[in-house]
Amino acid sequence: MKKIDEFNKERDRLNEIVMKYAGLGLKRFLSLDNQFYTEGALPAKTKEMLGLISSFVLRCDDCINYHLDKCNQLGVTNEEMEELLAIGVLIGGSITIPHLRRALEVWDDMRDVA
Amino acid sequence: MKKIDEFNKERDRLNEIVMKYAGLGLKRFLSLDNQFYTEGALPAKTKEMLGLISSFVLRCDDCINYHLDKCNQLGVTNEEMEELLAIGVLIGGSITIPHLRRALEVWDDMRDVA
Amino acid sequence: MKKIDEFNKERDRLNEIVMKYAGLGLKRFLSLDNQFYTEGALPAKTKEMLGLISSFVLRCDDCINYHLDKCNQLGVTNEEMEELLAIGVLIGGSITIPHLRRALEVWDDMRDVA
Amino acid sequence: MKKIDEFNKERDRLNEIVMKYAGLGLKRFLSLDNQFYTEGALPAKTKEMLGLISSFVLRCDDCINYHLDKCNQLGVTNEEMEELLAIGVLIGGSITIPHLRRALEVWDDMRDVA
Amino acid sequence: MKKIDEFNKERDRLNEIVMKYAGLGLKRFLSLDNQFYTEGALPAKTKEMLGLISSFVLRCDDCINYHLDKCNQLGVTNEEMEELLAIGVLIGGSITIPHLRRALEVWDDMRDVA
Amino acid sequence: MKKIDEFNKERDRLNEIVMKYAGLGLKRFLSLDNQFYTEGALPAKTKEMLGLISSFVLRCDDCINYHLDKCNQLGVTNEEMEELLAIGVLIGGSITIPHLRRALEVWDDMRDVA
Repeated sequence: MKKIDEFNKERDRLNEIVMKYAGLGLKRFLSLDNQFYTEGALPAKTKEMLGLISSFVLRCDDCINYHLDKCNQLGVTNEEMEELLAIGVLIGGSITIPHLRRALEVWDDMRDVA
Repeated sequence: MKKIDEFNKERDRLNEIVMKYAGLGLKRFLSLDNQFYTEGALPAKTKEMLGLISSFVLRCDDCINYHLDKCNQLGVTNEEMEELLAIGVLIGGSITIPHLRRALEVWDDMRDVA
Repeated sequence: MKKIDEFNKERDRLNEIVMKYAGLGLKRFLSLDNQFYTEGALPAKTKEMLGLISSFVLRCDDCINYHLDKCNQLGVTNEEMEELLAIGVLIGGSITIPHLRRALEVWDDMRDVA
Repeated sequence: MKKIDEFNKERDRLNEIVMKYAGLGLKRFLSLDNQFYTEGALPAKTKEMLGLISSFVLRCDDCINYHLDKCNQLGVTNEEMEELLAIGVLIGGSITIPHLRRALEVWDDMRDVA
Repeated sequence: MKKIDEFNKERDRLNEIVMKYAGLGLKRFLSLDNQFYTEGALPAKTKEMLGLISSFVLRCDDCINYHLDKCNQLGVTNEEMEELLAIGVLIGGSITIPHLRRALEVWDDMRDVA
Repeated sequence: MKKIDEFNKERDRLNEIVMKYAGLGLKRFLSLDNQFYTEGALPAKTKEMLGLISSFVLRCDDCINYHLDKCNQLGVTNEEMEELLAIGVLIGGSITIPHLRRALEVWDDMRDVA
């Protein structure tokens, strides 16, 4: 099983617990999270890249995984991913390098169709 | 065994290592950590909620677990916890959602008296 | 003129510019920002204190000023404020001390009815 | 004089002081800062948007101003800017709203050709 | 008047307001802040450099100014300062560059004995 | 097997994946990461301590482990390590305590020659 599929499965399991407790306000917030990434003046692909680099410089592995998956589905290439992550490392500094390693491990595993 | 009990056991084990190395200054800092949460002008329950939301927006799972346990002991209800975490997500942004998931998993497990 | 009144005036001026550009999604987000602090299972006063300490440990002076004003209006006392900020300094560390200074300057000016 | 021109002038003045002290390593780092934003697999415009949102969620006003200027020069529209900043606010949370206000003030001033 | 002297004067003014409100706990925290930087197994000069780089990567200008002053008093040279700040920029990333500019402006002004 | 050796082995494995994707810019950044810590106006030992405390206040366990290893190799004593970490906890606040626990566990294991 791909690392990203394990991640998504665990995410779904935990989201059920969130929904058990979430009130109206929190549900509204969570629904915004979907609305903001849809095709608009900016293409959905660009928006997912914006989401990815934000998650990267804020150093949240789960958020990185989520956007890596979306970027992959929307056709981001290896070269584009490398350039995006390089900017993330430059802005965020060497403190982000452990996240770079984990992000590329997930990406590499995701792209491996052997 | 509850998740929070496993967490507390591991915490105790590591605290012994800390005490092996801690000098006077560090010990004083660590003792402040207990003094600041005692009943005062603000009730202990409010103080633990302040500690929890601070830990949440700063995105430290171990700190979140610690204050979740205290909040539970001091009578925070599910509704109060949901409102607190909703404010945390709003202020801290969607980058905190993975911490919301993990916090509610621990809380749910803690409250489950089946 | 009180420092907080100058702050609120400037905030209103900038909010007009935000509204000139904000689309539906952003407007929804901004409206959530009001909804989450209303009286509920937790009193509005407690919610504003949660907003204040979150702003404090995340080190945002404008956000601190906003919640200081609300806390003052909702009856937070000097003793309660001191205990809240002490927890903020403890959790956030000495890096927050410049924000402590500025927060107490605004608070002191706000409370001064001479 | 436009706000961004004042900002750039002050930035140039301070960069001279930096260059007075910078050794070889620091100079290499600073030169990378230019290389990473050039046209590549990703267009320069996309790269500046990635730089802008990273600066936004990390809450650095000077960095935001720098990338706002570049985005403007590379043809980012008001609608694109709004969608970018909305994602930034969603991910970074309401703690970023003061930066949203200041960013849109600079952007509005920059776009004003009256 | 040197920039650092203006900074210290303003800091003293605000500290008086802090002392007007500070309770026992907060006073204890603030006194630790002095104790931890005294000569010990590590020289005071090294400790101030540790304080400076921490303040730098956490991006707090006031904290940076405070430790720049102490480093200057304890004999840190221009070359040592440059190497310290270069490591800070590398670890903290390009997001720290505006703080580098302001730090070197204060340092340059401090060292100028013309 | 020591914890640090497991950590280094995993790090090497992930670095191979990074090198598979890294372009020229990213490789240059990564090479700077080595250059900045060499003996200069500041001793290599001091530089590693600067790297450690920066990693500590920014709360990155992998970065902490990396610099703990280097500090150990360059002769940092238990007393020096304790003073460094105490300053880190003071500046970074109680939110860093879980990282203190994990850092001292790795350090204790590293120093244990029984």
